[in-house]
Amino acid sequence: MVISPSKAAARIRAAAVDAFASAGYGGTTTRDIAARLDMSPAAMYPHYRSKEELLFAISFEGHTEALKVVEGADRPGEEPSVRLQELVSTFASWQAGHHSLARVVQYELTALTPEHYRTVVALRRSTTRVVREVVDAGVQSGDFTIPDAEGVTLALMSLCVDVCRWFPAGNYTNPEDIGKLYGDLALRMVGAA
Amino acid sequence: MVISPSKAAARIRAAAVDAFASAGYGGTTTRDIAARLDMSPAAMYPHYRSKEELLFAISFEGHTEALKVVEGADRPGEEPSVRLQELVSTFASWQAGHHSLARVVQYELTALTPEHYRTVVALRRSTTRVVREVVDAGVQSGDFTIPDAEGVTLALMSLCVDVCRWFPAGNYTNPEDIGKLYGDLALRMVGAA
Repeated sequence: MVISPSKAAARIRAAAVDAFASAGYGGTTTRDIAARLDMSPAAMYPHYRSKEELLFAISFEGHTEALKVVEGADRPGEEPSVRLQELVSTFASWQAGHHSLARVVQYELTALTPEHYRTVVALRRSTTRVVREVVDAGVQSGDFTIPDAEGVTLALMSLCVDVCRWFPAGNYTNPEDIGKLYGDLALRMVGAA
Repeated sequence: MVISPSKAAARIRAAAVDAFASAGYGGTTTRDIAARLDMSPAAMYPHYRSKEELLFAISFEGHTEALKVVEGADRPGEEPSVRLQELVSTFASWQAGHHSLARVVQYELTALTPEHYRTVVALRRSTTRVVREVVDAGVQSGDFTIPDAEGVTLALMSLCVDVCRWFPAGNYTNPEDIGKLYGDLALRMVGAA
């Protein structure tokens, strides 16, 4: 079987997510990752030249995917309440459904080089901006009553992101259930009319 | 200068929090921690015999402190709204004020031995129980209207815990500001009358 370079790279990223999730980024070597795939470190080198490059690839992919999911959930033609509920619900259930990837993406950011960190932070800001625009639209239309748009947006994003830390827990083992709950809580947080 | 054993142990724990915060638990050796204190690994051994024992001591201390802070903030004689606002506000600002410690305590849990993990999880449950009791009290008195007490409690705890990941950010650089915002948001989340 011939494996295409992009398929091989995807397998390496998946093995790295598993390795980072179980031993942490700092506790994993490129050799550990190669060993999970019965690969030599030399065979991995053409795809990723360092552990940090691999982390960046995972982080970039995860953040790009999260941004796409959030952008794809927005319905600019709808009322702010409908938009916010859909955004938060979709993002929260995505975080639940991808919790291993999301943990690596969220908690190992500080291991990136300054340049890679800036690239990833720009993606995060874009995701936050989608939510912030809906919050602002609701304030402007009078549908939302909030103490501070920055703080409320921060709290909404934080609530969604942290799902990857605790999910699953108790009766919340289904990503859709957490999406539904969080969509409702978001409307309460903005004081939706 | 003679340093008491408990003082030496506290210095070791503080150095370990710094080391874990910068290189992760997996990326830190007991030798790294000893080096931060100009200490030999052998001198550290009587206090903590392994890196995991040190992580457990930090985690136990952090979770015990968080529980004390939350229990101390509860005012059982007051109305549920007053109690919840105070609890959430106090816990959120504590997480902001102790974000380096809190990150180690929250994100490295899986590195603990099963026995140590169970001990720490019991402390977390006690903290959650304080919040849950107030949520239940508000539902019973008719002050709160919520879709599901378990889910709302989970969301309230999650919101507070995640402060340690992002704090400080933007205009939120003061633990008290985040406490005030989150106390208000908590009341909205429970639909306080």
